[in-house]
Amino acid sequence: MILFERNNFFPLKKKYLTKELNLKIKKDIIFTNCKNDFYVEDISSLQNFKDNSILFLDKNKNIDISNFKNIHIYTENEIYKKNFENITIVKNLNNIYNKFLNELYFHEDQTDFTDDFDFTNGSFISKYSDIHESTKIGKNCVISRGVKIGKNSIIKNNVTIKNSIISNNVVVSDNSSIGTTGFGFDINKRGASNLNPQIGIVFIDQNVSIGASCTIDRGKLDITYIGKNSMIDNQVHIAHNVILGDNACIAAQTGISGSVVIGKNVTIGGQAGFAGHINIGDNVIIAARSGVTKNIKDNSVVAGFPATDIKEWKKNVIKQRNNWY
Amino acid sequence: MILFERNNFFPLKKKYLTKELNLKIKKDIIFTNCKNDFYVEDISSLQNFKDNSILFLDKNKNIDISNFKNIHIYTENEIYKKNFENITIVKNLNNIYNKFLNELYFHEDQTDFTDDFDFTNGSFISKYSDIHESTKIGKNCVISRGVKIGKNSIIKNNVTIKNSIISNNVVVSDNSSIGTTGFGFDINKRGASNLNPQIGIVFIDQNVSIGASCTIDRGKLDITYIGKNSMIDNQVHIAHNVILGDNACIAAQTGISGSVVIGKNVTIGGQAGFAGHINIGDNVIIAARSGVTKNIKDNSVVAGFPATDIKEWKKNVIKQRNNWY
Amino acid sequence: MILFERNNFFPLKKKYLTKELNLKIKKDIIFTNCKNDFYVEDISSLQNFKDNSILFLDKNKNIDISNFKNIHIYTENEIYKKNFENITIVKNLNNIYNKFLNELYFHEDQTDFTDDFDFTNGSFISKYSDIHESTKIGKNCVISRGVKIGKNSIIKNNVTIKNSIISNNVVVSDNSSIGTTGFGFDINKRGASNLNPQIGIVFIDQNVSIGASCTIDRGKLDITYIGKNSMIDNQVHIAHNVILGDNACIAAQTGISGSVVIGKNVTIGGQAGFAGHINIGDNVIIAARSGVTKNIKDNSVVAGFPATDIKEWKKNVIKQRNNWY
Repeated sequence: MILFERNNFFPLKKKYLTKELNLKIKKDIIFTNCKNDFYVEDISSLQNFKDNSILFLDKNKNIDISNFKNIHIYTENEIYKKNFENITIVKNLNNIYNKFLNELYFHEDQTDFTDDFDFTNGSFISKYSDIHESTKIGKNCVISRGVKIGKNSIIKNNVTIKNSIISNNVVVSDNSSIGTTGFGFDINKRGASNLNPQIGIVFIDQNVSIGASCTIDRGKLDITYIGKNSMIDNQVHIAHNVILGDNACIAAQTGISGSVVIGKNVTIGGQAGFAGHINIGDNVIIAARSGVTKNIKDNSVVAGFPATDIKEWKKNVIKQRNNWY
Repeated sequence: MILFERNNFFPLKKKYLTKELNLKIKKDIIFTNCKNDFYVEDISSLQNFKDNSILFLDKNKNIDISNFKNIHIYTENEIYKKNFENITIVKNLNNIYNKFLNELYFHEDQTDFTDDFDFTNGSFISKYSDIHESTKIGKNCVISRGVKIGKNSIIKNNVTIKNSIISNNVVVSDNSSIGTTGFGFDINKRGASNLNPQIGIVFIDQNVSIGASCTIDRGKLDITYIGKNSMIDNQVHIAHNVILGDNACIAAQTGISGSVVIGKNVTIGGQAGFAGHINIGDNVIIAARSGVTKNIKDNSVVAGFPATDIKEWKKNVIKQRNNWY
Repeated sequence: MILFERNNFFPLKKKYLTKELNLKIKKDIIFTNCKNDFYVEDISSLQNFKDNSILFLDKNKNIDISNFKNIHIYTENEIYKKNFENITIVKNLNNIYNKFLNELYFHEDQTDFTDDFDFTNGSFISKYSDIHESTKIGKNCVISRGVKIGKNSIIKNNVTIKNSIISNNVVVSDNSSIGTTGFGFDINKRGASNLNPQIGIVFIDQNVSIGASCTIDRGKLDITYIGKNSMIDNQVHIAHNVILGDNACIAAQTGISGSVVIGKNVTIGGQAGFAGHINIGDNVIIAARSGVTKNIKDNSVVAGFPATDIKEWKKNVIKQRNNWY
């Protein structure tokens, strides 16, 4: 698990006691038990617990937070009442997530978010960013608050990078957008003002090449990860929370939905798509224009929509055509 | 019908009398009847008639313009001769459209179009735009002539907005292009110089969220409309004249062709596509990677290409696979 | 074959004798015969031989270079030993290509590449570019070293153009990237540092219209060509070495893979895709969302994936559906 200092990207507006926070959502509370009151310093996720944090817990998840100090849980699930001593049962967890995160953090989808830029060599570079002097930044780029870029990287022109940590020897080509807001909201409550605040980052590991007009959304609470030596072609979209293993090769116009986890040495053809929350094994080859809807095992070669073993897919294509006449 | 002042975006080069205009196309005229000569002040569309305008009338359209003062019709269809007192029958309507609109209006696809910008906080803001002071504009944006943006909106970085009216609480993410030129031309006469001038606008209603690297083309004569509370993910393309109802949700890399009309509360998966000029009802769900080729009724759930009822599609997928062995 | 002066875009770092170059790859050499030593001035491709150059020769290619003076061949194929007097057999041709080109040329994927810009009217224009005064450049563009743009063209806003020659009357819309790096590398050796240097250009012929957020990669050694009067919609991707014939029409979100050759008067619907290295004839119509995997003859109309005759495809769609019940 790669950690990052959330406050570098999303400054905490104010430290609240959990009891203070609960006062703000009085009407939404069904039950609350607050054994320890404490100042909330961070948000935990299911993958990443933190001391002095709050945790939004979906239905039917078993967790063990016994090693952590001061985690207050918010959930809709009354069963958890007995399991935790710092817990609040709420009516609509998604609403509470939005309310609390907007209250706690500055982020770019609220008008009160600020940054402070130098105009250097034709690009806007945040005073709160940290770019190694050996890295080259083209013209008309915007490198925002908290961004860190390692050695010998090349950021071409008209690139926007925010909420991201970029390692050494990375290339990002023109007009790409790294660290943008993930597409997260309650499907029953739409609109810009109902977007779930996205306060994670993008982490791009060493020696990655990213093409032109790509979009990589930051994680919701944790990271969107691009593994070492990965090659990403133009107009590729990578959604929030995706974990892409080392040595990936992704051809143009492919889209990877939220929370997809992809193993190492995967090769993906152009215009492929992925359903959200699926797992792709190591050494998998996914043919161009595949629509992958399910988990794929290591060493598989798949094609078609829904994607399936490529030999079966080819057989089927021939069979269908024989049937046409 | 949302109206807009065309002249704010596309200044009229000169007021012509209809008889003056007809002198410019002498060789292309088959018949003309010009009961009232008048100064042409606007262009009517089939959805939107205007006094003192000209109207380009395709074959086989019944219209009633009796409530309007001074509409001169141009058409290839000789049948209309008797129906209207101000009418010119021409050989090639598309040619006349191009000739007249290029003669009448300044627009961005001609080199004589001008604008005048202030460089404010790192973005180019037209002196002829009107942006509410509560709205935040990022760096390297270009906000062009006539654009109006309401309250508390957030325009991120490297965004271009032209020929658009944007309401309150709208978010437009990085590297998106709003109000761009629609893909309209006579398929038999190609090339940049034969593009049909596009002199409509984009209207984005309240509380809409638009992702990164999206493109939304302006209407040809009227508007491309994005309904209230709509959520649009990254790399979505919306073509000219599309009407998107309120509360739409469109996942990444979907493309909506010209003149598609979509109802309210529609949910569209990623990488879906739509044939032009079709109608999608209210509350429709369109699965990811669907290719929608026909009208879809209210409350339908569709998938596949050509898109069909999702249950049938799933049944078919299973059946096909059983046949493989 | 359109020629261009490579040095205008990719300055030669130093003139090397072939024997000097071979000293740099000692361990990789299996055999070498160097009848004439000479200063290497350029790189030949299989389509374009040049005097005083080196040529990287893949397996199983017959070539006749007898009319050219001083071409030193690098290949993995020992059979060629006898055919050429200036030849080096190497272990891994791809490695040698990368090593030599990085040694010989400045290019944008290395940190030592430089350019020198004027900031003119809101865009960065290289001092080494040549733009006709009648051409209009919008705001926040970057026009890089060597770029030539003809008369009466319109480059809109936030466009990046590098390594390209653009003719008269061309329109390039917002946020497009022209002349970007092609997606070329040894599939077994990934990572930004292993990218095959791409030292060709994009040539856009007269009266072409290119939409918003398009990406057109430059050729690897030769050109990516966009034929006269072609109309390209938004979010289209055209990969390296593509040759697109005159009067092409390409709807939104289509992707054309590397080295595809497309004839004249071709019409391509939206969201279509093409396998690499295939040939499409003249007057071909390719339906929206087609996945074209094989060569297509003149005057064909195709649809589906894999794309096939559209009548057969439609018949099949109906047949499948009849089978569902």
